[in-house]
Amino acid sequence: MIKQSKDFWILKQNKLIPSEALAWESLFTQGSGYLQIRGSLEERLENSPQNIEYVRKTTNVSAEKFIDQSTRWGCYIPGIYSPHPVFNNEITNLPFPLGIDLYISGERLDPLNSTIAEFSRELNLKTALLKRNMIWKCKTGAVLNIKWRRIVHALVKKLILQEVVIVPDKDIEIEVVAGIDGDVRTNGYNHFTRVECQASSTGCLCVVETDGGNRVEIASIMSGDGWKGEANGKSAKQIKKIKLKAGEQLVLEKRSALSCDRDIDVLSASEVLDRYKDISFEKLLTGHIEEWEKRWEKSDIEIKGDKKSQLNVRVSIYHLLRSYVDDDRVSICSKGYSSDAYWGRFFWDTEMYIMPFFLYTDPAKAKNLMNFRINTLPAARENARMYGYAGARYPWEADSNGKENCPDYLWQFRDHQIHISGDVIYGFLHYAYASGDYSYLKEDAAEAIIEICRYWMDRIDNVNGKSVLLAVTGPDEYNPLKNNNSFTNQIVIHSLKAGASIGKEAGVSNKEIAEWEKTAENIPILRRPDGMILQFAEFESLAEPDFVNYWKDRNKPYAESIDEERIYRNKSSKQPDVLMMMWLFMNEFSGEEIKKAWDYYEPYCTHDSSLSPGIHGLIATRLGLKKEAWKYWEKTSDFDFNIENGKTSSGVHIGCLASIWQFVVFGFAGVKTAMESEILTMNPLLPEKWEQVSFPLIWKGQRVKVTINHKKIFVENMSDGNLKVNICGREYIIAAQKSVGHIMQII
Amino acid sequence: MIKQSKDFWILKQNKLIPSEALAWESLFTQGSGYLQIRGSLEERLENSPQNIEYVRKTTNVSAEKFIDQSTRWGCYIPGIYSPHPVFNNEITNLPFPLGIDLYISGERLDPLNSTIAEFSRELNLKTALLKRNMIWKCKTGAVLNIKWRRIVHALVKKLILQEVVIVPDKDIEIEVVAGIDGDVRTNGYNHFTRVECQASSTGCLCVVETDGGNRVEIASIMSGDGWKGEANGKSAKQIKKIKLKAGEQLVLEKRSALSCDRDIDVLSASEVLDRYKDISFEKLLTGHIEEWEKRWEKSDIEIKGDKKSQLNVRVSIYHLLRSYVDDDRVSICSKGYSSDAYWGRFFWDTEMYIMPFFLYTDPAKAKNLMNFRINTLPAARENARMYGYAGARYPWEADSNGKENCPDYLWQFRDHQIHISGDVIYGFLHYAYASGDYSYLKEDAAEAIIEICRYWMDRIDNVNGKSVLLAVTGPDEYNPLKNNNSFTNQIVIHSLKAGASIGKEAGVSNKEIAEWEKTAENIPILRRPDGMILQFAEFESLAEPDFVNYWKDRNKPYAESIDEERIYRNKSSKQPDVLMMMWLFMNEFSGEEIKKAWDYYEPYCTHDSSLSPGIHGLIATRLGLKKEAWKYWEKTSDFDFNIENGKTSSGVHIGCLASIWQFVVFGFAGVKTAMESEILTMNPLLPEKWEQVSFPLIWKGQRVKVTINHKKIFVENMSDGNLKVNICGREYIIAAQKSVGHIMQII
Repeated sequence: MIKQSKDFWILKQNKLIPSEALAWESLFTQGSGYLQIRGSLEERLENSPQNIEYVRKTTNVSAEKFIDQSTRWGCYIPGIYSPHPVFNNEITNLPFPLGIDLYISGERLDPLNSTIAEFSRELNLKTALLKRNMIWKCKTGAVLNIKWRRIVHALVKKLILQEVVIVPDKDIEIEVVAGIDGDVRTNGYNHFTRVECQASSTGCLCVVETDGGNRVEIASIMSGDGWKGEANGKSAKQIKKIKLKAGEQLVLEKRSALSCDRDIDVLSASEVLDRYKDISFEKLLTGHIEEWEKRWEKSDIEIKGDKKSQLNVRVSIYHLLRSYVDDDRVSICSKGYSSDAYWGRFFWDTEMYIMPFFLYTDPAKAKNLMNFRINTLPAARENARMYGYAGARYPWEADSNGKENCPDYLWQFRDHQIHISGDVIYGFLHYAYASGDYSYLKEDAAEAIIEICRYWMDRIDNVNGKSVLLAVTGPDEYNPLKNNNSFTNQIVIHSLKAGASIGKEAGVSNKEIAEWEKTAENIPILRRPDGMILQFAEFESLAEPDFVNYWKDRNKPYAESIDEERIYRNKSSKQPDVLMMMWLFMNEFSGEEIKKAWDYYEPYCTHDSSLSPGIHGLIATRLGLKKEAWKYWEKTSDFDFNIENGKTSSGVHIGCLASIWQFVVFGFAGVKTAMESEILTMNPLLPEKWEQVSFPLIWKGQRVKVTINHKKIFVENMSDGNLKVNICGREYIIAAQKSVGHIMQII
Repeated sequence: MIKQSKDFWILKQNKLIPSEALAWESLFTQGSGYLQIRGSLEERLENSPQNIEYVRKTTNVSAEKFIDQSTRWGCYIPGIYSPHPVFNNEITNLPFPLGIDLYISGERLDPLNSTIAEFSRELNLKTALLKRNMIWKCKTGAVLNIKWRRIVHALVKKLILQEVVIVPDKDIEIEVVAGIDGDVRTNGYNHFTRVECQASSTGCLCVVETDGGNRVEIASIMSGDGWKGEANGKSAKQIKKIKLKAGEQLVLEKRSALSCDRDIDVLSASEVLDRYKDISFEKLLTGHIEEWEKRWEKSDIEIKGDKKSQLNVRVSIYHLLRSYVDDDRVSICSKGYSSDAYWGRFFWDTEMYIMPFFLYTDPAKAKNLMNFRINTLPAARENARMYGYAGARYPWEADSNGKENCPDYLWQFRDHQIHISGDVIYGFLHYAYASGDYSYLKEDAAEAIIEICRYWMDRIDNVNGKSVLLAVTGPDEYNPLKNNNSFTNQIVIHSLKAGASIGKEAGVSNKEIAEWEKTAENIPILRRPDGMILQFAEFESLAEPDFVNYWKDRNKPYAESIDEERIYRNKSSKQPDVLMMMWLFMNEFSGEEIKKAWDYYEPYCTHDSSLSPGIHGLIATRLGLKKEAWKYWEKTSDFDFNIENGKTSSGVHIGCLASIWQFVVFGFAGVKTAMESEILTMNPLLPEKWEQVSFPLIWKGQRVKVTINHKKIFVENMSDGNLKVNICGREYIIAAQKSVGHIMQII
């Protein structure tokens, strides 16, 4: 195989442009799972105070304009949620531990105000190491060459390491101020009921108590001695003045750590710093890199012939890897903990978009994600009760308690986008089928499945002899409160069948099982007279969207160009709905039905949701639509890397990033999911531009490496047993540690 | 005619029960139009501080639970609105001018904590004078007999007069503390950017500046001398210790006044007090009573044989009279300025419920109410632009600027309850037809009518050849976002026809008029195969409501017993929709059609809206359903007087109160509205319990007095011209100042 240049691992920012700074900060988010931190600069930016109090608009987040800032600090421990009076529980932005301010003769380095001759930052995706190089022309005339390095340690998960190396061209005295800033807000709101800061020559400590009832400790220490401690009610600092000769190199290291009262590993922040104090930066970095290498080994996708795609794929995988939390009391939030814009909430994105990546590369992690749903079953029961229902109803937006947190002004989603409970069951089954851990359904997940079925039975209405789901918002949020949405009906049918199949062993009565089976049969999937599946009962009576007049600038989301009131009465969609159903239930529909739905619904889709283009791409590959597939590939894989459009300012879209992985594996490589096929089956549609793609997979516990180019499909069975595969319709049995090369037929 | 006992003018509270106190406070609201003030006690209540800050729930107001208090001060100048970050502009609760605290040896009179031997309050509806009698048993052993009187002056509209008369049974020293309390909130929010208080021996002054940019001055003076002034940043007080012998009578008078920077009459609060300082309480009271007598002469309804109905009708009329503001820069808000619960906003209630009372009793006031819509046409245009439409779109909830203030979390109403613009046109026509002021349509209102038609044309979609209104919320708010709601379609047809009829003279092109006419013809009113009119396209596919299981306590609103999500998918309604349309367009439907609709829709209606029972009653009287009409009469006329159920705590429902008047005149008396009939036409259905009902009317400028009993209908033409009337199908011409007596046929 051709060696890739190491550049394909480097995400690089070459300039600090205020309007793009937030997007880079999101993309440079680092995380250990335990701890997540946006890639903010070490320096405070004068134009972006972090303690402004404001109320976010009670509006759809997708259409919201955030306050205009060049940096938005974000330091999170997944699971630390605090109540907001309007928006409900939100992941809490913790005191900022990264700050290192530099002064020369009273001039503070502020990269947006100072004279900066050179600026670049790069994130090495392979090592998760963030570097910055800068040349600062001080007002005194001195020119400083400064380099930073930063990691959030992959193994010592509470630990952040920063290094700064300064070389002046003249003799200077530099003042360094480094510490912890506790004067921060979450979405403009102050969640701290107590902030206590201490500083001494040996380090800083900041303890906060939140209105969510948590206690968080943040500690930091600077390398070397001679520091002076200074603390006030909001912040703690270590300060030192250092004389440097021209050309002399100053190396400073800052270490910080976080801990909280919900930790499983009970080492406090101070104890963490203390425990590792004698281990050097380089040694700690080595351990960190080794851990990241292991992760990449399980999941890297190598693409030959398309540098851009290669980089985008790796950025996606990087964010998936760093946002995973090894703690089934939480899941991966929809911004992958790269911002508080979506309040750190868990959506259906987990089951339908994010989980499959882990499921086919590191299934124990997928299990952890699904266990979160099992752990929050009591809250789902409470949620059903809140609405007056039996059983369990998973919330549209869960916090770590699994409770509904979608604010009530978005009631069209909170109350009506009920498919989430069916998505959870789909996730359970997908996990079990792909991992081969079938007992998971009958044991771990059984109660949740049964309770969801009981909710469905209570939610279903009987109208004119049919079992119907009324006033439902499907995945396409531009068409809320519709009757018999096909997606929802299909996922309910699937739920009830799943419940019926595992119910008996779990003690459900025959009578109840029979009712589930009967009801599943009686739920309609509505079709037009010509057989085309309807998105919902009223679809054909809606108006045609007038994209020509109401969506002139296609670089902006449709919803920014038109009022929601108008959107709600035409056929435009935010994301796939019928096509999403078809993607999830490929075997239920013929190619002809799918093509018909594609031709009809695809032109109506605005892709205002980042979850949209990836699914369209998957359908296009399955339909063999090469050109469309490539168009959607560009849309999907560029979504978070199109820095200028500002979408990434408020965090990366982890569901979209996960759909990039699905696009390559299930789409271009044409691997059928375990929901579609019992054995590993693939039928690639490699983009012409790509010379080759290769990736590892785990199929029902067997490790596999797949390599596809335009001539050959090469499958290595890296497991200790035989592996049955189906490549382009031909079945192979690959012996343990052997491989097979399938020659592509040129049609 | 039999003389009514004067008791039928007295609304009396016999006991101070904490859970009922707020409702009485609402019912005892006094107002001059310029100024409105809830009937709070003079004393501060220890359990109900008025400076608590909180955020109201972002939920439907009907289902909201307010904070638990025994008093909720409310002092408003219509037009003073201030911006709330979540709820938009709200009428601003101004500093409380009524406070008079009494101390005996350090014990403060607090009617909920002190020992009270007797307590009663009564509002004389005829004179708008509020009285209180109380016996306070002080801890010292002294017993004080205390009487209060209070008016908000009907002519000196900025002036409030209070009198307190104290007689002790023992020698006492009483300390009196009276002044202005500026430490108040509106819905838990502080709108004051500046509060400045001064006090001296001669009076108190409080000036506030609001975040809405207004400046309000409140002044107060106590009668007599020897007062000591005391002010802090939030309040101003006059304090005096007075020695009283046993049996000696102390008479104190407090006068206060308000003024603001949007006044037309520019006299400041202090100037008002100064101007009237030498005129006695009794003399001012006389002028006030004379003004109220004039009002009652125009509008009183006398009912013989049913004391309860008589009192309820008069309370309704009292609130309508006092809430009217002689200033067409504002209208009558949906709580009639008796609370800030609905933020002082103007809804369709004005045109459809409130305005007719004025229209047929004092048409100049009705014109003023309609002029408010004309004056706010620029805002309605802006509102159309906001949604991307041509023309003018009146807001669902207007403030005095006429801008949309419905908060965005209630988008299903704000964005989709578009019938309001058609209701405004209906109001214009109703005003013109009933008053005979036909030029109003072609001159004053023409531009608004035309602009609304242009909005409709842009809002209408063309689907399958029909002109349709999609995603509409009709009057029944329990069924939002429906297609082809009959009410909305009908009101749009009516709008377009009105526009077409006045358009040409106003310079609209023939082409545009032709389009309006063509479109009006092409808007469907959907019917079932059996001819029954559908509320909207999807109605028949909804679930049947399960009232038995989900609405067990019928004393509570349906919406408090069931989740909104479930409401939104069944046929239950909040208020009449098809029946409301039929009420407004009586001539468009046959009796058979109306009866069919009644039989079908009436059982689905929950009457959760206070606007509901009155319309049902009107339809019942028109259908000759005596028993149902009486049931709805009790429901309507009791709505705000059913103190125990708490609905009136957050203010009276002025639309419902106005529907009481409509029920009597258009329902029981069977007077056809001017939208139904060119000449005065009546066909009564007098309740059996009522011996007689009589009321004045103005029909196209002619004053009429109608008296109906079970034998005779007596119509007096009090005007100077002939009056043509139709009584029970028989036409009469009544000469000027003459009358006619129509003998009822016993069927």
